Amino acid sequence: MAFNDRFLRALACQPVDKTPVWIMRQAGRYLPEYRRVREQAGSFLTLCKTPELACEVTLQPLARFDLDAAIIFSDILTIPDAMGLGLHFIEGEGPRFERPLRCAADIAALPTIEVANSLRYVTEAIALARHELIDKVPLIGFSGSPWTLATYMIENGSSKTFSLVKRWLFSDPDSLHSLLTKLADCVVDYLSTQIHAGAQAVMLFDTWGGILTPRDYQQFSLYYMQRIIKRLKNNALTRETPVILFTKNGGQWLEAMAATGADGLGVDWTTSLHEARQRVGENIALQGNLDPAVLYASPERIVAEVETVLKAHGAGNGHVFNLGHGIQPDTPIDNVQVMVEAVHRLSAKTV
Amino acid sequence: MAFNDRFLRALACQPVDKTPVWIMRQAGRYLPEYRRVREQAGSFLTLCKTPELACEVTLQPLARFDLDAAIIFSDILTIPDAMGLGLHFIEGEGPRFERPLRCAADIAALPTIEVANSLRYVTEAIALARHELIDKVPLIGFSGSPWTLATYMIENGSSKTFSLVKRWLFSDPDSLHSLLTKLADCVVDYLSTQIHAGAQAVMLFDTWGGILTPRDYQQFSLYYMQRIIKRLKNNALTRETPVILFTKNGGQWLEAMAATGADGLGVDWTTSLHEARQRVGENIALQGNLDPAVLYASPERIVAEVETVLKAHGAGNGHVFNLGHGIQPDTPIDNVQVMVEAVHRLSAKTV
Repeated sequence: MAFNDRFLRALACQPVDKTPVWIMRQAGRYLPEYRRVREQAGSFLTLCKTPELACEVTLQPLARFDLDAAIIFSDILTIPDAMGLGLHFIEGEGPRFERPLRCAADIAALPTIEVANSLRYVTEAIALARHELIDKVPLIGFSGSPWTLATYMIENGSSKTFSLVKRWLFSDPDSLHSLLTKLADCVVDYLSTQIHAGAQAVMLFDTWGGILTPRDYQQFSLYYMQRIIKRLKNNALTRETPVILFTKNGGQWLEAMAATGADGLGVDWTTSLHEARQRVGENIALQGNLDPAVLYASPERIVAEVETVLKAHGAGNGHVFNLGHGIQPDTPIDNVQVMVEAVHRLSAKTV
Repeated sequence: MAFNDRFLRALACQPVDKTPVWIMRQAGRYLPEYRRVREQAGSFLTLCKTPELACEVTLQPLARFDLDAAIIFSDILTIPDAMGLGLHFIEGEGPRFERPLRCAADIAALPTIEVANSLRYVTEAIALARHELIDKVPLIGFSGSPWTLATYMIENGSSKTFSLVKRWLFSDPDSLHSLLTKLADCVVDYLSTQIHAGAQAVMLFDTWGGILTPRDYQQFSLYYMQRIIKRLKNNALTRETPVILFTKNGGQWLEAMAATGADGLGVDWTTSLHEARQRVGENIALQGNLDPAVLYASPERIVAEVETVLKAHGAGNGHVFNLGHGIQPDTPIDNVQVMVEAVHRLSAKTV
C-alpha cells in the first residue's frame, strides 16, 4: 500500500483525489479497544507516559476507519507537568495540578525544562508510531498554546469564568507575559523535538483563546503562537513541517490567525467554511468543521451534514475534513464510519 | 429629581448628555445587602417569587451606584418552572429540574400556561419596582430566549457539551421546533405582560445560541427571537417598548441579529464595539461590552478599560454601556463604583 499523502497535500493547498479526514481525539474513549488499554495502563497519565501504549492507542482508530492522518496520543498538559506542577486527573472532573500557579514568584520559580529529557516519553511514542505508519498515513504532533497552558496552570484545570487567569491578566500583565514567554520557548523546543522524532505536521491547540477580547487575544494568545510559528519557519530543520493553528471560538479572528504564517487553520462549527475561505483567501488550508454532535444523528443525517460541510468549503484546494472540536466519548462508533466514508465518497474527484 | 431617560434615548439612537450604564446581574450576590435579603428569603426561588423582596433587591444597586436603568430581579427559568418542570437550585451547581424533558411526549404534554396567573409574581414585582422608580430611571424586563430555555429544559441545567439538546436537534428537529414554538408564544405573552405591568424596555437573553452552527443558530434560535420581536412590534400596546437582543458568543452573527428588528444588541467582549458598529450601521443601539474580569483590576486599569470601550464605540449615538456578561459574585463593590463613575465622566459631552 502506497503512503497516503492526501492530508499533507491538502495542507499545502495542492490538489487531492479526495478530501482527507481525521478526527480530533480520534484515539480516545469512544473506542472500546482504547478503554481496554487505558484500563491496562491503570491511569490516564501512565498511558500517556508509556511510549508503547501511547503508540498502540495512536494506531487504533486507523485500524477501524479509513483516516488520512494519525495524531500522537498524548495530553495537552505535558509541559506544565514537566515543569513540576504535578499533573493528575480526577475521574469525571478533568486535569488538576498539585502546585498550580498562585503568584508571580511561582512563575519566576518555574524551571527551564529540557524537553529532550523530561518529555522523552512523547518523542519516543512519536518515533514508535512513525515507524508503524511509515507506508500508511502522516503522523501529527501537537502542543497546547502558551495561553491555553497558562490558563490551566493558573485556574488549576478548566473553569467556567476564568476569574483567576483574567484577574492576573488585568492586575499583573507583566508576570503573565513572562510566563507566556517561557511557555512559548518551551513549545518551540517541544514541537521541534516532535518533528525530529517523526511528526510530519504539528498542531497548536488554543482551547481558551476565545475567552479573551480581540485585543487581549492578540497580545496574550496569538502573539505567542505567531512567535512559535516564526521560529519553526526560521529553522531549516523544522520549516518544511506544516503547522495548524486552532483557536476554539476564534472564528471572529481568522484573518489575524492566517497572518501568523500557519499552513492551516482549525475552524470550529460556529463559522461556515464558505465564509472562512472567503475571508482568509486561497493560500492557507482550513481544517474542520462538523459539529461533533452530528455524530449522534441517523446515518442519513450524518451524510447530509458531511455534504453541507464539503459544499461550504467548495471544490477548491486546501480542505482537511475534521470535527469542529474533539469527538465525544459517547459517540457511536458506526457513525464515525459513516462520516469517514461519506467524506471520501462525496469529495471524490470524478476524473 | 427629573426622570433619567438616558438609557431609553440611547436605545432609540438619540443624543445623550452622557453614555448610560447598567450592569447585567446588577442586583446580585456581589452586594452584601442582596445576600442579606437572600438569606432572609430562605431560598433563591422564594426571593424570586416574593414580589416585595424581588422589588427590594431590584432597587438595591441603584442606591449605591449612579446607574441609568434598573432590571427586574428574577430568574431566566421562570417559564419552564411555570410549565411544571419543578425548578430548584443546587448550591454551587446552579439550576435543576425535577422533570427535565426527556422525549417528544414530554414536549407534547407541556401545558399551555396562563402567564398572567402563573407568573403573576414577576408582574407584581415589576409593578412595585416601577412605582418606586417613577421619577428615577427606566425599568427593564427580560426573558430567556426560546432556544436557551429549551437547552436548560433538556440538559437539566447547564452543560459543557450540550450533548442532549444537540442530539435532539439532529435526531428529531421537528419535536424541538414544536417546543421552541410553544416557548416563543409564551415569551411573547410573558414580555407583553411585563410591559403592561411597567417594564420600559425588554431584553431577550440568548445565553446558549453561540453553541450552534450559523445555520442552526438561524433556524433554532434567531428565528424564534425574530418572531417574538415581530409580534411585539405588531401590537400597538407593546410596539413602542424597545427590545434588546443578546446572544452570548454571537459576535459572528451581529448582522443577522440586527435584521430581526431589535432596537439594541448586546455585545460580549469578544467583539470590539468599533467593528460591531461598522457592521450593523447607525440605526441600532449597541449594549456592552467590558469584560467583567476587568472589575478585578486596579481603579486606574478599570478607568483605562472603560475608556477603551467608549472609544471603540465612538462618539456616535446608540451606546448603552454594560459588561459583556453578568457581573461575577466576587467582584469588589468599590470597583463597580469606579466603573460607573468613569463611564459618565469620560463620556460627558462638553457643550
